Amino acid sequence: MKVDGVHYRTIWPSEDGGQVMILDQTRFPHHFGIRALSTCADAARAIRNMEVRGAPLIGATAAYGIALAMRQDGSDSSLNGAVEQLSATRPTAVNLRWALDRMHRVLLPLPPAARADAAMTEAGRIAEEDVAINSAIGDHGLPLIRDIANRNPGRPVNILTHCSAGWLATVDWGTATAPIYKAHDMGIAVHVWVDETRPRNQGAFLTAWELGKHGVPHTVIVDNAGGHLMQRGEVDLVIVGTDRTTARGDVCNKIGTYLKALAAQDNGIPFYVALPTPTIDATIEDGLAAIPIESRAADEVSRISGLDASGSVTTVGLLPQGSRAANPAFDVTPARLVTALITEKGIVPANRDGIARVLAG
Amino acid sequence: MKVDGVHYRTIWPSEDGGQVMILDQTRFPHHFGIRALSTCADAARAIRNMEVRGAPLIGATAAYGIALAMRQDGSDSSLNGAVEQLSATRPTAVNLRWALDRMHRVLLPLPPAARADAAMTEAGRIAEEDVAINSAIGDHGLPLIRDIANRNPGRPVNILTHCSAGWLATVDWGTATAPIYKAHDMGIAVHVWVDETRPRNQGAFLTAWELGKHGVPHTVIVDNAGGHLMQRGEVDLVIVGTDRTTARGDVCNKIGTYLKALAAQDNGIPFYVALPTPTIDATIEDGLAAIPIESRAADEVSRISGLDASGSVTTVGLLPQGSRAANPAFDVTPARLVTALITEKGIVPANRDGIARVLAG
Repeated sequence: MKVDGVHYRTIWPSEDGGQVMILDQTRFPHHFGIRALSTCADAARAIRNMEVRGAPLIGATAAYGIALAMRQDGSDSSLNGAVEQLSATRPTAVNLRWALDRMHRVLLPLPPAARADAAMTEAGRIAEEDVAINSAIGDHGLPLIRDIANRNPGRPVNILTHCSAGWLATVDWGTATAPIYKAHDMGIAVHVWVDETRPRNQGAFLTAWELGKHGVPHTVIVDNAGGHLMQRGEVDLVIVGTDRTTARGDVCNKIGTYLKALAAQDNGIPFYVALPTPTIDATIEDGLAAIPIESRAADEVSRISGLDASGSVTTVGLLPQGSRAANPAFDVTPARLVTALITEKGIVPANRDGIARVLAG
Repeated sequence: MKVDGVHYRTIWPSEDGGQVMILDQTRFPHHFGIRALSTCADAARAIRNMEVRGAPLIGATAAYGIALAMRQDGSDSSLNGAVEQLSATRPTAVNLRWALDRMHRVLLPLPPAARADAAMTEAGRIAEEDVAINSAIGDHGLPLIRDIANRNPGRPVNILTHCSAGWLATVDWGTATAPIYKAHDMGIAVHVWVDETRPRNQGAFLTAWELGKHGVPHTVIVDNAGGHLMQRGEVDLVIVGTDRTTARGDVCNKIGTYLKALAAQDNGIPFYVALPTPTIDATIEDGLAAIPIESRAADEVSRISGLDASGSVTTVGLLPQGSRAANPAFDVTPARLVTALITEKGIVPANRDGIARVLAG
């Protein structure tokens, strides 16, 4: 999407193909910087240090990391070593593993001298496929926004979102944001309520940044505020992303998503979840019983970073001495609270039939 | 309640009656300090600068402010001037107005020379009445906690609370915290989940501080986490305070309370609201339609203060440049989501009958 009028993706090869460029997201939202990755080790560092975030972008970065390794040395041992090095960066990232397996499967049968070009081509394909998936999610979600706009001429469509399921987590478009960007780009007036999304503030730090840079009107709110806004008729629909969706349509997403789903239901507001179908985990039915919830470090709750008066990023402590914090990172929204799923294959109900249909199609 | 083993109230007259002592809450939770108020102007400043917070404590501070004015000059013009000065500090605080009216009504008929002593006595009565009300709320709420403890021997009762309805907002005990302190003090094992309560973090800054200082086990969580904890069976009951309760039992409280009430209902967890009956506004039925919600400054959302590495309190900015924030400060929880109201006159259902009963009794 655009940053001050210039189109960017989150990852792209340099003109000569010798490097891979990324946006360094560790410095967002206060600094915007591009970094060049020259080696597989650079790509591994970028993933490990969370310079790149979001499952699709991590997968694409790993694929490009393999390509950088192949440029230096196309041998079997170089290929296997690169897969191993990248694999170790985020041990639980499913998409990372998937991208590495695919690169390995494509490259291994080729003669070593042919691997550098083939790897760059395949990494490019992985990136393009992600863009195509998200763009299709946007196309399918767009009518949901357009219909509300048509029913309410003269006032913007108010969309609430939680966490960051924007283009910064993908190669382009994002998932939850794709319908919003499509609507905005075709001139439909939209306004996004951006949940701050404590404790890591991805809503305030990433979603608000990318919406602002693309020119989409938005307002940041604390996570407590969404229910009140829904009660007052100031939210027309909710669109969120998801990390994992079960065979019956339960969705696991950033902590606090469930509370917004409850409020949407209580106020008769549609609650949509946008997802690429590869994130569906058909081996699981009951998300509440079967999905383990990561408990993250307490200091994500007890400390926060921001820009101090001198313009430096400073970390401050938020708790009284001696108080401890707990930090469950995700929650599960039961399918009964989800109006529908927006996928690259179309909109389907969040139930067994809907999930089976997109997995078959 | 206790601070490191020593019993404190939030306000008390000095030994010789010449000053009034308060805890300076602007420096919480990182600094604990006592301030002496010597004049009515000191009391007005303490209220205006939010050195004291919470309706009951503001009322008591205003009453003591009148007493300090009467010590200096017991004339009618001094009395009227003091009422005017204190009245202007927080124009929308109902309890402030109530306390000033009461002081004025008691003092005006007296000869000026008798007013200093009478004012100190009456301010003391106002403070004692607040302590008695909150203690009674604690006594009535205690069995709710004790019953759960009796049903689950060997494990603590997990109570979730939102914002700060603790003793720091009153003269002692607090409202929502009173049953918790009573249970803890009689040896029932309790554990409190403290919602951080963005944007002003009163949960993390005040509730966690006072629970910790009194020795009550507690864990701070982000406001997003409560629903997940309820889904996992880690919350036995919710107790919150309220700023205003309507004739049919709708409760207006800190933004985000409504989301916790929805989650409690969805998980079959009792949701109690603790309140002194004087905060019932019987002139209003429908809280959603009739209670105007204060929209506070956006910089409460976009900036936060905490302790930096050098031990100084520093403010940092949390939003990308150009992103704006909205800050509705309260929300209304409909009576249908409230299990019962805990008042100083007993526990009653959140409906017309229950409200009428406590107002009559």
